[in-house]
Amino acid sequence: MIVILKPNPNPDQLESLKNWLLGKGIQIHTSLGTSQMILGLVGDTSTLDIDLINALDIVEDVKRVQEPYKNANRKFHPEDTVIQVGNTQVGGGTLTIMAGPCSVETEEQIIEVAKAVKASGATMLRGGAFKPRTSPYSFQGLGAQGLELLKLARAETGLPIVSEIMDTSQIKLFEDVDVIQVGARNMQNFNLLKLLGSQPKPVMIKRGLSSTYEEWLMSAEYVMASGNEQVILCERGIRTFETYTRNTLDLSAIPVLRHLTHLPVIIDPSHATGKYALVAPLALGAVATGCDGLLIEVHNDPAHALSDGPQSLNPQAFDQLNKKILSLHAFLKEQEA
Amino acid sequence: MIVILKPNPNPDQLESLKNWLLGKGIQIHTSLGTSQMILGLVGDTSTLDIDLINALDIVEDVKRVQEPYKNANRKFHPEDTVIQVGNTQVGGGTLTIMAGPCSVETEEQIIEVAKAVKASGATMLRGGAFKPRTSPYSFQGLGAQGLELLKLARAETGLPIVSEIMDTSQIKLFEDVDVIQVGARNMQNFNLLKLLGSQPKPVMIKRGLSSTYEEWLMSAEYVMASGNEQVILCERGIRTFETYTRNTLDLSAIPVLRHLTHLPVIIDPSHATGKYALVAPLALGAVATGCDGLLIEVHNDPAHALSDGPQSLNPQAFDQLNKKILSLHAFLKEQEA
Amino acid sequence: MIVILKPNPNPDQLESLKNWLLGKGIQIHTSLGTSQMILGLVGDTSTLDIDLINALDIVEDVKRVQEPYKNANRKFHPEDTVIQVGNTQVGGGTLTIMAGPCSVETEEQIIEVAKAVKASGATMLRGGAFKPRTSPYSFQGLGAQGLELLKLARAETGLPIVSEIMDTSQIKLFEDVDVIQVGARNMQNFNLLKLLGSQPKPVMIKRGLSSTYEEWLMSAEYVMASGNEQVILCERGIRTFETYTRNTLDLSAIPVLRHLTHLPVIIDPSHATGKYALVAPLALGAVATGCDGLLIEVHNDPAHALSDGPQSLNPQAFDQLNKKILSLHAFLKEQEA
Amino acid sequence: MIVILKPNPNPDQLESLKNWLLGKGIQIHTSLGTSQMILGLVGDTSTLDIDLINALDIVEDVKRVQEPYKNANRKFHPEDTVIQVGNTQVGGGTLTIMAGPCSVETEEQIIEVAKAVKASGATMLRGGAFKPRTSPYSFQGLGAQGLELLKLARAETGLPIVSEIMDTSQIKLFEDVDVIQVGARNMQNFNLLKLLGSQPKPVMIKRGLSSTYEEWLMSAEYVMASGNEQVILCERGIRTFETYTRNTLDLSAIPVLRHLTHLPVIIDPSHATGKYALVAPLALGAVATGCDGLLIEVHNDPAHALSDGPQSLNPQAFDQLNKKILSLHAFLKEQEA
Repeated sequence: MIVILKPNPNPDQLESLKNWLLGKGIQIHTSLGTSQMILGLVGDTSTLDIDLINALDIVEDVKRVQEPYKNANRKFHPEDTVIQVGNTQVGGGTLTIMAGPCSVETEEQIIEVAKAVKASGATMLRGGAFKPRTSPYSFQGLGAQGLELLKLARAETGLPIVSEIMDTSQIKLFEDVDVIQVGARNMQNFNLLKLLGSQPKPVMIKRGLSSTYEEWLMSAEYVMASGNEQVILCERGIRTFETYTRNTLDLSAIPVLRHLTHLPVIIDPSHATGKYALVAPLALGAVATGCDGLLIEVHNDPAHALSDGPQSLNPQAFDQLNKKILSLHAFLKEQEA
Repeated sequence: MIVILKPNPNPDQLESLKNWLLGKGIQIHTSLGTSQMILGLVGDTSTLDIDLINALDIVEDVKRVQEPYKNANRKFHPEDTVIQVGNTQVGGGTLTIMAGPCSVETEEQIIEVAKAVKASGATMLRGGAFKPRTSPYSFQGLGAQGLELLKLARAETGLPIVSEIMDTSQIKLFEDVDVIQVGARNMQNFNLLKLLGSQPKPVMIKRGLSSTYEEWLMSAEYVMASGNEQVILCERGIRTFETYTRNTLDLSAIPVLRHLTHLPVIIDPSHATGKYALVAPLALGAVATGCDGLLIEVHNDPAHALSDGPQSLNPQAFDQLNKKILSLHAFLKEQEA
Repeated sequence: MIVILKPNPNPDQLESLKNWLLGKGIQIHTSLGTSQMILGLVGDTSTLDIDLINALDIVEDVKRVQEPYKNANRKFHPEDTVIQVGNTQVGGGTLTIMAGPCSVETEEQIIEVAKAVKASGATMLRGGAFKPRTSPYSFQGLGAQGLELLKLARAETGLPIVSEIMDTSQIKLFEDVDVIQVGARNMQNFNLLKLLGSQPKPVMIKRGLSSTYEEWLMSAEYVMASGNEQVILCERGIRTFETYTRNTLDLSAIPVLRHLTHLPVIIDPSHATGKYALVAPLALGAVATGCDGLLIEVHNDPAHALSDGPQSLNPQAFDQLNKKILSLHAFLKEQEA
Repeated sequence: MIVILKPNPNPDQLESLKNWLLGKGIQIHTSLGTSQMILGLVGDTSTLDIDLINALDIVEDVKRVQEPYKNANRKFHPEDTVIQVGNTQVGGGTLTIMAGPCSVETEEQIIEVAKAVKASGATMLRGGAFKPRTSPYSFQGLGAQGLELLKLARAETGLPIVSEIMDTSQIKLFEDVDVIQVGARNMQNFNLLKLLGSQPKPVMIKRGLSSTYEEWLMSAEYVMASGNEQVILCERGIRTFETYTRNTLDLSAIPVLRHLTHLPVIIDPSHATGKYALVAPLALGAVATGCDGLLIEVHNDPAHALSDGPQSLNPQAFDQLNKKILSLHAFLKEQEA
């Protein structure tokens, strides 16, 4: 950590800051420039509150040099994390295909979609039971019943299931869900993250609409620091000034996260764009950029979906797309070998 | 609501869409342009799922004409909402001053600050008991004990207290908190919003870091639709590309919300900027722009605050500032009269 | 165009608006809703000033239904534009590889790089002669001399050259440049765009840092409306809240522009990310998403580049990358066939 | 400047970097941390290319400690810059009111508005002759004739005139314009900035739509480094995700720039919001926040303005508003005294 002092700092305050830092086991290297003094702090600075130091009268700015996350940091865990989910794996060179409807609606619907996406090569079934909707007047999902229908579909197809938890009070209902998803709007629901860190199921954290890579990794760190190392990251578009697409899909997240962390990275082109015509090209782009998997909405009747219909593909379109995806992934693996 | 169709829509699908809309009691006005057909939907369109219609093959775009919120909408409630909190009022031409430390730390601290800010003219005491921190390694607040200390300070000074709830599981602890704050990161924690709608205390909703005015009002609508009409809106800066300030304080929110809603609007320059030197000018600016109140961090010892120190004013600085604020507010009221 | 009126509009003002519109040859369809009246305007609305109508007292909002660009619009020009540049083509299923240094520095440098990138399969040589630098104290490029060196490299290799113009006063110097680039900061330099529309060389317009797709296409429209239909669009990252990368590369631009326009789309992962380690994965991702080409910085000695060094690949790394790019493109074309 | 090295840097490359820096007269302070080495660079680092150093294989990150601008920096010029324009001053505790129509249309219009705003207390007349319009099909301004009409209005009223230059080729036409405005879209038109630095008229630089404070000050630095120290900064809203207002007015710019620079700061609420109902509250807010002046659009007939009509006030509304503005400014000055 670098502390940049204001010109001519008060000597007593400087002494007091130095003593406080030394008391925390931090070593201090002082650089005296032409117009400013800089302190280089060496040691375990992850417990130092950057805001607190910034608050001091004599301090102009504080810049962090080391990442504030440890468990999620590739520097300390160079090997890729591979997560076993049912009989499939996430990470480690595999390509996870999570497919299914935005919302679970009926038993017929979810089982029909589950069979279809399995036949097309999907490795997990996704479906929303609790739906975070901007409007209180919109359909909010089937709730607990939706989770039961997902389990029926799993029993029928063998596909592990992924579904979103919205609140700590729902945790019991998710005991038998294979991957628990944290939505973008809950990415910094820290109580939920801590609770998910103390249970054994893998957790998939969607990136918040305006969350930096670092904040996102800090949310993973919350889960990991609470004891659960099985964390998957899912990019689903960030909020920008552009309104033609619902959000702006940030595929740079793939190589950036590959560098910063050992956790697997899934891309969700369906929610990011909000337009199903954009899903196929961006899914292929994400695979070529090197993601560990995709989350794709598939619906047996897009025109009558009760929520988030616009970005759903129907099973036929998904089948076509997934063939291209798997073939592209195979080609890329071969190239590397 | 306006539905813009693609060129040459399939007649059966068009018929089917029209029947579905008519079945929902919506009237349809058709405009046939040179290259496109437009449907003007008239009636109660707030229950129509805009995404769902957008999903149809024959639809190019859907644009909403009416606001999707009702309870929060000034069109249907032209009078300003005034909220009674203890012996003070929020809204209706008053100026609410919520002041206090970011985090409650000790009994001495909170009582000392409470007395000081009351003497300077604050009308409520704010203090964090549960703290949403980006890092799991940062101080997370005193929790339930912090709320008890706030109540002691209230008993001592008579100031109503404002504190942030982070999770539905904490609701019992907040039964005796005068204004329950929903933080920016929880603005779309819909389960929490619904729960707060079913209890009697006023709720102050901070704007999410990348939330539009409409999304913010929809969060208010969640609380109001669940039965609690006492909602206060608090602007605390939005996330932009500019990194010099922590966030970008959006003072346009004041006249915009004044037009769109009848709910009171509070401005928080402390969190928005993250720099205490910016608090005073922006607090005055907010008052002249016409806000209903301010939320200002005040700490008895900024340099040793355990959280969010940088934006705290000490009681002396707050006293100076609040004198200017109150005098400016008095001047502006006089001008208007 | 849809005009949403305020509740209870003044009848005289409404009459006056209607007459003005009819006078412009616009047909008006009126929809009377429960609380608002909507006018659907039919005809050539591209010449109507949306802001002007919005200004009227009786108008609440105006929404455009048709795109305001014509020449660049795929609706009116369904076929892909293919641009001949020297002996190579841009668009129409080809993959253009523009490679070269950020700045032209010396004759040796540019010729060495030109030979290297040609050997690796590049189809054009790019190099900056006039450099838009944030700081007046940074190297501003070799200017006219840089253009001469580029021509020498072209003579040596046969590669067409691409270089950035910064001001209308430089137009004569660019008479013999094969593709004239308009930088992101000049995307709305309308005088420059008009001038480039009246000369015969192809123009490549980089997307402005915070420009929407529509604004970008309107800049293309400026060039096309002035008579030059040979316009190439180049996505180079947009400004968002994320600061880890220099900008956020928006690969959704590829399928979106494919839908909206017939003009070719080039992706520049080098400037977008500002980090050379991210160039390779995103270049491959862009190809799989369906771009018409790439702009990649290549330098013979990245560590000593005089400008924008960080995102340069050296010729060896570029050779490796371009092999993968060409092989991926061949694979994808084969898949489609 | 701080250079953060990657773990285990190559010793030869490190030696070479150090020698290069020492050769530039930079002193190096080395801090060896637990996992990383940090170099603190001391001396005149403003000429070092941060990107170039970042490009080195052994470098992980580079952080600037000192501002890259000198002439515009308050550290080196503690006194406020006060600019004489005709018989009025900008900066130094005065309140400049630039008022007038978006576009100059006719002699009657501009003279009528000029007289009206002068009577209401405006200190300068603004009017657009060359208009930067997103669409090539929109009215582009009267051009040179517009400037002549402005001069007539100046002759009639004595008000100095402010107008926007769009291109270096127009410079002769602006020789007799009192303040030359650089528009937001041209903020980084570096050739234009340099040219304006070599002529004697004051220059008002509007903030680019997505420009940081630092980039904005670097644009001022371009003008100042070329010899013209009379630079005025004008905040006119930045581009964010919020679309209700045209842009988001950033009033934090006032105290931030007051701290960073000695140049005067003008606020333009008209363009920022794009809605005339928001102009009055934000103009008052800007004054209370401490700006040096306002730029307000005033039109004699808002409904028939040929460009940017929606944000124009008519002379009556401006008169009412300016009375409040001047009275607020007088109150605030009195308070300070």
